[in-house]
Amino acid sequence: MTGEHSSKQYDTDLETIRSKVLLMGGLVERQFQEAINVFRNGNLDAAERVIKDDDQVNRLEIELDDACSHLIVRRQPTANDLRTVMATIKVITDLERIGDEAAKIARTAIHLHKRGAGTIDHTETVRVIAAGAADLLHDALDALARLDEKQAMRLIAQDVVIDRDFRSIMRNLITFMMEDPRTISASMDTLWVAKAIERIGDHAKNIAEYVIYIVEGKDIRHTDYATGQLDESDV
Amino acid sequence: MTGEHSSKQYDTDLETIRSKVLLMGGLVERQFQEAINVFRNGNLDAAERVIKDDDQVNRLEIELDDACSHLIVRRQPTANDLRTVMATIKVITDLERIGDEAAKIARTAIHLHKRGAGTIDHTETVRVIAAGAADLLHDALDALARLDEKQAMRLIAQDVVIDRDFRSIMRNLITFMMEDPRTISASMDTLWVAKAIERIGDHAKNIAEYVIYIVEGKDIRHTDYATGQLDESDV
Repeated sequence: MTGEHSSKQYDTDLETIRSKVLLMGGLVERQFQEAINVFRNGNLDAAERVIKDDDQVNRLEIELDDACSHLIVRRQPTANDLRTVMATIKVITDLERIGDEAAKIARTAIHLHKRGAGTIDHTETVRVIAAGAADLLHDALDALARLDEKQAMRLIAQDVVIDRDFRSIMRNLITFMMEDPRTISASMDTLWVAKAIERIGDHAKNIAEYVIYIVEGKDIRHTDYATGQLDESDV
Repeated sequence: MTGEHSSKQYDTDLETIRSKVLLMGGLVERQFQEAINVFRNGNLDAAERVIKDDDQVNRLEIELDDACSHLIVRRQPTANDLRTVMATIKVITDLERIGDEAAKIARTAIHLHKRGAGTIDHTETVRVIAAGAADLLHDALDALARLDEKQAMRLIAQDVVIDRDFRSIMRNLITFMMEDPRTISASMDTLWVAKAIERIGDHAKNIAEYVIYIVEGKDIRHTDYATGQLDESDV
């Protein structure tokens, strides 16, 4: 096998993996959007679909991990090519976790709708953070598809806004619960949904970091740049 | 280079990585233990140490990811050996996240102690779940060190108990907040700490799953066995 042949085969295999990762990305993006719809309208069938879609996401995770292993063994990539495969393995884990969080949102939404949200406008409470996280996820997948490092850099700063939104939601819900303890159960459900959304933002930011790692070979995890130099509590 | 030489070199390199992963494991285990102590006694210096230790954990993550990449490129492991490296890459991510959660516990603990826990016995509230998660983490690292698949299998069932403990804490805190809304802020801090502990349990369970994967080459993620056949909400 000539070097060129091996390299072409490598490119083909990698392209197959890349398409499947983007397929998985599209799936969790839809899953997240549907979960937010369920939170809004309490549609039980839609909730079941979100939870069921998680099986497909989980299957894709295992398939893709296997595909990455096989690629490494068969094609023995160079250090440079291997960087892309390593980053892909990490991206797959983040996508799977986004699917988990979407399923959690759907389950909590059903819980909330069955019991009634009371006086809380739960949809309005998470509207801004949900839109922010959906944009961030969409743009991170887009940056991954186009290997657009500049866009990825911008997204890392956007996650800081989502973290701030979450802390503000938490403070408001605590005030609300104190003023009217009958809203505590519904407030808690809303808070878990906000937390799941904030985590989806974190995973999208991780994906953006891996895009930069692929393009630049620079590991920016745990740098001031990546954390937005925040030293506030991120709970 | 003969096959034998290459294989010996591979073993040496892998052994170096394994020791460093176990070092990282010991570090996050201590970090978690210290964070729980801070939650108990509110010691500000100790909290700073937990948060500072996270830098070292983050550095180890990047170093270990690099070491794994270099191992793959230089030694070109067989499918079987590569499985161990792939699982190691995933274990490193879980260890890093445990460090994050420990730092969160320390930050929330300081927050709680500065403001006062009021009538909540916050230490008692998380005592059982903290002990359960500490045992699970310790035993998962032990199973990883000895590649003890049977122990790893037992641990996966233990995580179900931790998830149940968490749901019970959440129900109790909600009742508490409803009965006395003045406890809401302190209850919320305690709840975030319980949530961080529950997540540490999840990460320890992931490590146990990777031990089984290394030993058996069986991917048990997302099977009924791995989830303990739970279909309850895991928020």
